[in-house]
Amino acid sequence: MKKRIIAILGATGSIGTQALDVVRAFPDLLQVSVLTASHNADLLITQALEFLPSAVVILQAEGYIKVKSALAHTGIAVYCGENALEEVVQRPEVDVVLNAIVGSAGLRPTVAAIKQGKDIALANKETLVVAGQLIMNLVKQHGVAMLPVDSEHSAIFQCLLGEEEEAIEKIYLTASGGPFRGRDRAFLAEVTKHQALKHPNWVMGAKITIDSASLMNKGLEVIEAKWLFNLSVEQIDVIVHPQSIIHSIVQFRDGSMKAQMGLPDMKLPIQNALTYPQRQANDFERFNFLNYPTFSFEQPDLHTFRNLQLAYDALRDGGDRACVLNAANEVAVAAFLEDKIAFLGMSDLLEATLCQLNKIEEPSLNDLLAVDQQARIVARDLIDKV
Amino acid sequence: MKKRIIAILGATGSIGTQALDVVRAFPDLLQVSVLTASHNADLLITQALEFLPSAVVILQAEGYIKVKSALAHTGIAVYCGENALEEVVQRPEVDVVLNAIVGSAGLRPTVAAIKQGKDIALANKETLVVAGQLIMNLVKQHGVAMLPVDSEHSAIFQCLLGEEEEAIEKIYLTASGGPFRGRDRAFLAEVTKHQALKHPNWVMGAKITIDSASLMNKGLEVIEAKWLFNLSVEQIDVIVHPQSIIHSIVQFRDGSMKAQMGLPDMKLPIQNALTYPQRQANDFERFNFLNYPTFSFEQPDLHTFRNLQLAYDALRDGGDRACVLNAANEVAVAAFLEDKIAFLGMSDLLEATLCQLNKIEEPSLNDLLAVDQQARIVARDLIDKV
Repeated sequence: MKKRIIAILGATGSIGTQALDVVRAFPDLLQVSVLTASHNADLLITQALEFLPSAVVILQAEGYIKVKSALAHTGIAVYCGENALEEVVQRPEVDVVLNAIVGSAGLRPTVAAIKQGKDIALANKETLVVAGQLIMNLVKQHGVAMLPVDSEHSAIFQCLLGEEEEAIEKIYLTASGGPFRGRDRAFLAEVTKHQALKHPNWVMGAKITIDSASLMNKGLEVIEAKWLFNLSVEQIDVIVHPQSIIHSIVQFRDGSMKAQMGLPDMKLPIQNALTYPQRQANDFERFNFLNYPTFSFEQPDLHTFRNLQLAYDALRDGGDRACVLNAANEVAVAAFLEDKIAFLGMSDLLEATLCQLNKIEEPSLNDLLAVDQQARIVARDLIDKV
Repeated sequence: MKKRIIAILGATGSIGTQALDVVRAFPDLLQVSVLTASHNADLLITQALEFLPSAVVILQAEGYIKVKSALAHTGIAVYCGENALEEVVQRPEVDVVLNAIVGSAGLRPTVAAIKQGKDIALANKETLVVAGQLIMNLVKQHGVAMLPVDSEHSAIFQCLLGEEEEAIEKIYLTASGGPFRGRDRAFLAEVTKHQALKHPNWVMGAKITIDSASLMNKGLEVIEAKWLFNLSVEQIDVIVHPQSIIHSIVQFRDGSMKAQMGLPDMKLPIQNALTYPQRQANDFERFNFLNYPTFSFEQPDLHTFRNLQLAYDALRDGGDRACVLNAANEVAVAAFLEDKIAFLGMSDLLEATLCQLNKIEEPSLNDLLAVDQQARIVARDLIDKV
């Protein structure tokens, strides 16, 4: 395999740091050219000194001077702000952009990278939730690869190797069920952020961990899967599998099913995306049936976990609905983490925001960027009114 | 897909009749040109009148006149005896030979078909158990496809689509565990053939059902897998999975695993082999998680089910050992079904037969055919001496 030059957006987050573990494991195959961080200047500096990229970006202005002076002797270019993201992904040496930014902020750099013909390793599912149709059109138009990093979508992607897309009958996205699996709405009404932040199987950032507890994460994944694999809503099912060993399943039109499985370790799908189409040997821990003698499965409870139902509804309604849902959810999760609203208040906020904004049937990219902002304003207003 | 012309060897058995169900489901894609049966003249006649093949073969002379006169008005050629099998598979119109014969009798027709450039849909695992190396060399030399029909090997084959053979780290062949899973040797010492013939999940012929009860079937599958997928013994594990939903698993060198799954229905792997490389839509019953909320896994008990250990040993020892093991096992199963030996007596007979025959390190095909006969004589003598 030819050495692949990578830009990592969101390098100091959970996916970003694990991606750097993967780069460390394959020094002959992978090389980092760009690292970006939201606010964690210290970690970004440490990473830059180890991996010696050509450029780094820090979004929050507070950290810029610190990073700039710490890296002054290295020759690494240091930038600040969101616009810089769109520039660095276009650097000529970059082969693959790993987008591990949290939230719809990941959309514009993805678009810029695709337009420059870069392959995308996508951990930022919000890119496809907000603008799936437009993004996949761009992917086709520019002939780039869209490589999923979410474990579920990586599973589907792996199951589809050597298969025809039109042979898919349906897919099952597996869900751990999160920390509140089996609980009812009365219980959820009282849960704290500390409870919600304790995921049983996966170590992840705060936003996605809350989304996992509310099943919104699975809802966003349903929408992401629709666009990645060109499916109808009816072809996408969710099945709760608390052990998180089977990462997702494809059922083909002959009735045969293929599942991808393994330990819940994000390094695996990250490596898969970065080294695609080759499988490189690694020494990551292997799955052992002795530790997992039972896999169990149950239907998701869409009454208790209403966010998943809202995601299905938004996908069916189409237009800008998923964009509104996602923006409202980002505001809702932030408000929950700041103790401004309760756990069940998040679903209420999503529904209220969707109600307040008229639907746009065929939004352009600029429409969606505007709707994303507008939905945040509406959602924040609704919180302030409570 | 171009219409595919099929020869079905063993048409009146469990696999053969299900293969004809598949042909019935795809009248535009599949056509039968040859049907053969061991002794069931009545069913062969019924099948021939429905599918109107060019030729039929009945092995046992007793049925020949009956078949011949019943089909006299049809123009279907009727043959008798084992040599006829080797001739009919070579007919110019035949694209694929589905070999569903029981036991090492399937070996010579497979060789004849490969040499004529026919693709093989292999349900007769004994072909590869007896002469795996030689057969796979012939397959390569003649550029034909070797399409597995055993559900486990079909599962591995499907998981390998779009993957590189050298990316395999190991495989897990799943085993239901048969009707005596969890039992000890004291229990097995007393079991009757009626108990042994009751398989919990699969409806199959008598020989393979007894082999499933003794785990010899899994042992033969380990050997078959070694040759089909070019693996070392150490790369092949067996895991007991009583629900028989996951049909087998490949673990790749990056630690990712792929499993093929579905209801335990042999029509699926048969269709897969006959319509490969396409997946054709069918209306066979679909898997539903509501009916299978739990998958469980356990290590096979090689002390109680010694046949599986003997198969691993024979594969490690190499040379003609698997051929001897298989021939002795065919005699042992027949003797058990005739109440001549007890259930545990089967393993004893295999070991005794292996001891009595000196090992041939690099047997030719003729050597193996001779060893197969000799091992049967030795095994029968051992039974008579008891």
